[in-house]
Amino acid sequence: VAKTIIGVMGPGNSASAFDLKNAYDMGRLIAEKGYVTLTGGRACGVMEAALKGAKDAGGQTLGILPSSDKSDASEYADIVVVTAMMSARNNINVLTSDVVVACGIEAGTLSEIALALKAGKVVVLISQDEIGNAFLEKLGKGKLYLAREPRAAMELVERHLQ
Amino acid sequence: VAKTIIGVMGPGNSASAFDLKNAYDMGRLIAEKGYVTLTGGRACGVMEAALKGAKDAGGQTLGILPSSDKSDASEYADIVVVTAMMSARNNINVLTSDVVVACGIEAGTLSEIALALKAGKVVVLISQDEIGNAFLEKLGKGKLYLAREPRAAMELVERHLQ
Amino acid sequence: VAKTIIGVMGPGNSASAFDLKNAYDMGRLIAEKGYVTLTGGRACGVMEAALKGAKDAGGQTLGILPSSDKSDASEYADIVVVTAMMSARNNINVLTSDVVVACGIEAGTLSEIALALKAGKVVVLISQDEIGNAFLEKLGKGKLYLAREPRAAMELVERHLQ
Amino acid sequence: VAKTIIGVMGPGNSASAFDLKNAYDMGRLIAEKGYVTLTGGRACGVMEAALKGAKDAGGQTLGILPSSDKSDASEYADIVVVTAMMSARNNINVLTSDVVVACGIEAGTLSEIALALKAGKVVVLISQDEIGNAFLEKLGKGKLYLAREPRAAMELVERHLQ
Repeated sequence: VAKTIIGVMGPGNSASAFDLKNAYDMGRLIAEKGYVTLTGGRACGVMEAALKGAKDAGGQTLGILPSSDKSDASEYADIVVVTAMMSARNNINVLTSDVVVACGIEAGTLSEIALALKAGKVVVLISQDEIGNAFLEKLGKGKLYLAREPRAAMELVERHLQ
Repeated sequence: VAKTIIGVMGPGNSASAFDLKNAYDMGRLIAEKGYVTLTGGRACGVMEAALKGAKDAGGQTLGILPSSDKSDASEYADIVVVTAMMSARNNINVLTSDVVVACGIEAGTLSEIALALKAGKVVVLISQDEIGNAFLEKLGKGKLYLAREPRAAMELVERHLQ
Repeated sequence: VAKTIIGVMGPGNSASAFDLKNAYDMGRLIAEKGYVTLTGGRACGVMEAALKGAKDAGGQTLGILPSSDKSDASEYADIVVVTAMMSARNNINVLTSDVVVACGIEAGTLSEIALALKAGKVVVLISQDEIGNAFLEKLGKGKLYLAREPRAAMELVERHLQ
Repeated sequence: VAKTIIGVMGPGNSASAFDLKNAYDMGRLIAEKGYVTLTGGRACGVMEAALKGAKDAGGQTLGILPSSDKSDASEYADIVVVTAMMSARNNINVLTSDVVVACGIEAGTLSEIALALKAGKVVVLISQDEIGNAFLEKLGKGKLYLAREPRAAMELVERHLQ
């Protein structure tokens, strides 16, 4: 039977310390619940922080790479899926996640938030960009939730797993 | 030699009258310059309005469908590309466009704006959502331009074709 | 209204002189009928030969690239679609073609023949590999036709355009 | 660290009893080695048989669906990846597999064999179609191996894991 998968999205090399800490903590919290942590799989930023958090808490991890081989995968990804389709793989990230959590925003993350909403997925966003938060909450029409920190985000995730 | 392709993105069934008029006019202006008008190809909203505008001005049109056959293509698309990959085709829309113009914003369009910025493309946005405009202009780091109406948008497009 | 698109598939750098001549002639024949010639868009092998044949006969051409920008497109492609999804774009090639013609076979071409058959498309194959021909004709269950040369292939294409 | 993933490809509803038995046994053998069994994820044919074999032997399973949600996933898939890209997901199946095993051949499976060879992957084929075997062994240029039954196939898999 399919395991519950929670996606953690966010900036790669441009991730802030705030984003990285939140991603790490999200990975831990997801693992503690027994869910699989999914990220974009690369060895940097929010992707790696969330996977490391999940592994540190004994969880299972899934990385969906944009690349055409596994050479740039994070060492904390147990299962590495190779898509060779660059940013188009962002749609796979969100469709595979039962709920999507975004830790920070840059262009790639924003595409994932938007693709998730387009697909009717619930998105939980932890960001200090108040303009972005206001814009996305309105665009999300009841499907995008703002959280101040990972524990509140995890409660929102739990509430939206059917 | 490859023709210049300008992508026009925007809401489907939820497009406003403002968005539809802008899309139609963008199609006309793109055609008058001799460029190809690209959209997501479906028979609704900004996609169809831009294609119709281009055809009314004697231009050439390209529709990149998310669907698995041509049955939902707009009648104003000359060349219909069938991707069968749902919203992941949004990345193809923007990579194929030399410059991207967005007429209005909903989740799908936002994913296209974000994917375009991620790929380093110039985006010209015509939207009356001032919060969205402020957020995206900042996120775009000099690659996203705001325009009040199609003629100003077309000038921005021309300036960014190398 | 969507133009009729005929896809010409075949080896890239490993194309034989036989394959290249057939591809060039197919491009010419497709153009003479007023149809669009589609290929994988790169500047080599069957892809480029078919596009050049079509342009030499005044036809219109469409290249669907596996790459993430237009730098490796054939100069004979009028419309260049950028997919950035490597061989997964082979499925787009065949879904976008009303009928698929294969000039020769290597691994990539074989994937296109197989994906076309999977999607219920008619495939016309010009190949001197008799074992391959026998195998694929049987696998094709009435959807794959063998032709000795381009003129016979074009007749089969015409017969299967509804 | 990324786990070793062995892909098992083959017909869906048209799978023969021979194919289904081989797929089931391959799943068992892969699981006994501690590797992950990957299939196309659907609840039929070789896909489900291989996943069930792996689960019966206590292994871990990964299903990469062509669909846009998890509703048609096999109950024996632990991790279900949703691609929403129909047959284009076949390329992901093979790129994600360290070695590909094919149990039987129809159009979809043939596309996977071809895409795997195109990507330089080793393919092990268990099929009684002697013409197909001859054709594919030649096309594979040293990368495609024929096996009479699962135990021999598993030895070939092991030999080609670096």
